[in-house]
Amino acid sequence: MTVISPLSILPTMTEDLARLEERLRDAVVANDEFLSEIASHLVLAGGKRVRPGFAIAAGGTARGMAEPAIEAVLMGGVAVELVHIGSLYHDDVMDEAEMRRTAPSVNARWGNLKAILAGDFLLARASEIAASLGTEVAGLLASTIGELCEGQVLELRDNFDVDRTEDSYERSIAGKTASLLATSCRIGGITGGIPRGDIEAVTEFGHAYGMAFQIVDDILDVVATDEQLGKPAGNDLVEGVYTLPVLRALHLPCGAELRDLLGPEITLDQRDRARALVRESGGVDEALTVARQWADKAAAALTSLPPSPATDALVAAADHLISRANEPVGHL
Amino acid sequence: MTVISPLSILPTMTEDLARLEERLRDAVVANDEFLSEIASHLVLAGGKRVRPGFAIAAGGTARGMAEPAIEAVLMGGVAVELVHIGSLYHDDVMDEAEMRRTAPSVNARWGNLKAILAGDFLLARASEIAASLGTEVAGLLASTIGELCEGQVLELRDNFDVDRTEDSYERSIAGKTASLLATSCRIGGITGGIPRGDIEAVTEFGHAYGMAFQIVDDILDVVATDEQLGKPAGNDLVEGVYTLPVLRALHLPCGAELRDLLGPEITLDQRDRARALVRESGGVDEALTVARQWADKAAAALTSLPPSPATDALVAAADHLISRANEPVGHL
Repeated sequence: MTVISPLSILPTMTEDLARLEERLRDAVVANDEFLSEIASHLVLAGGKRVRPGFAIAAGGTARGMAEPAIEAVLMGGVAVELVHIGSLYHDDVMDEAEMRRTAPSVNARWGNLKAILAGDFLLARASEIAASLGTEVAGLLASTIGELCEGQVLELRDNFDVDRTEDSYERSIAGKTASLLATSCRIGGITGGIPRGDIEAVTEFGHAYGMAFQIVDDILDVVATDEQLGKPAGNDLVEGVYTLPVLRALHLPCGAELRDLLGPEITLDQRDRARALVRESGGVDEALTVARQWADKAAAALTSLPPSPATDALVAAADHLISRANEPVGHL
Repeated sequence: MTVISPLSILPTMTEDLARLEERLRDAVVANDEFLSEIASHLVLAGGKRVRPGFAIAAGGTARGMAEPAIEAVLMGGVAVELVHIGSLYHDDVMDEAEMRRTAPSVNARWGNLKAILAGDFLLARASEIAASLGTEVAGLLASTIGELCEGQVLELRDNFDVDRTEDSYERSIAGKTASLLATSCRIGGITGGIPRGDIEAVTEFGHAYGMAFQIVDDILDVVATDEQLGKPAGNDLVEGVYTLPVLRALHLPCGAELRDLLGPEITLDQRDRARALVRESGGVDEALTVARQWADKAAAALTSLPPSPATDALVAAADHLISRANEPVGHL
């Protein structure tokens, strides 16, 4: 299933994203051709480039995107995408993933050692590019990488904990997902030279979008099929990652039965029964309501921005998110 | 065996290093107390702080270290030490190490997932501190992390290759070891505000010192005992990392016998026989000569600096290195 990013409604976005791809490919070239090959693997595998797309759109909000994104905005987009991809290298080692997108994962193809090193290399390249964009961008990107780690460690701590609090869930997804989306917008705004107030607005948009996005993603794990997701559905339950729809269901009438099903020894049948309980109990509906609230917040954050195709593109991205929950389309 | 760093001859160094320890401890505090605990593990395990010591000494060369190192130099020292420690977290995952210094390794204690994340977190904190020191420092630290990765990937590529070239060995140790020592000196010089020519000199010192240091370390793997190293001697041969003394011995009369012993299936008896061959053939002596040349280069790089206790301390560090090969004292 092909998904066209809502960002592509921007008149100049197609051209900007083509330039971005060029710069991404250039950014991952190492002195060592073997390291270049490993580091390029996921870059060349493609992706929707949501984070650089947000950087470009945020940077364009003040300029109406009448002309293609300026070079600094594009390089900001390269930096955030490299952080995203570098963290995927490490995620796939940690998850022992075999596939990433439609290609073998880096760890499956070259082993864990090289995947860890290539991930470090990509994060370092991102930091190097950020440094070339000034100390504010460099500091922001570095603190965001720290927040990614914090969010992931918090999730690991809560693994298999049926008493995981919603507050802990929120802090975890704020770190592991929303922080980089917020930073993508913020770096786009900074490098694009938009007014300070607008920088705060696009940052708030990115954060709220990220929260909504992750909740929708977590809902999809409960409601979508393997085919729709392109990976085994219900995997979060097997891995012990209890997300918002599950946490809500645990406090609904089916909670006691659900609690008995969950745990490290869960069978595939129990997993499927647990998914059905979460869907039928209203856990999914409640989580969807929370996701909608975040998506609304994302759109609301943009009301102070000057009208422009770039602003419209960001609003459309927020709107698109909710429809995604209704028609599962795979991982953003 | 306690080793006093030669840097401690600096009159103010004891005080500076005490302040550094405080800032190191503060730097690894995360919002999440569990992540803080993991990230603090190796910081609290101690170490000789050679890299921050070099930063402090380099920053002090123009000021004669009449007063304690300025705050920016100390924070530069914190940044390079965090890169060193963060990379050790990832190294230990890659090597499946059980122990690090005298404590259990992070991966042994908390598992690979958390060790990878905490390593990422430490590298990110280092980048954040570097960003606070300006774009030059931030860019330099990031490119150095990239070089560390390149050096390690190059070493992995050459694993078990008895035809590994000396050029490839040199490029690998330049990346994995010398680059961060050179950068430690350079960041100390930049943050200390020493003249540009002196910055080049201390950088050259750090690079040459790092080359000598790694060659000595590689020699120790062949000549020292388990007790002296605090880890199994001859491990490089088992892991397939063929270092300078081994590469030299492969081209000496014992080369054919040595070549037959090496390989992934090497037994402990074969390892011991190989070590003896490398020692007795003259491979160690040749490698020691190369190490001495690098140590001499390190000292020579400093001749243009104004005389000061800080300069003397750096010269003493280079001199100390050679004595280390004669009286094995464990990992620097």
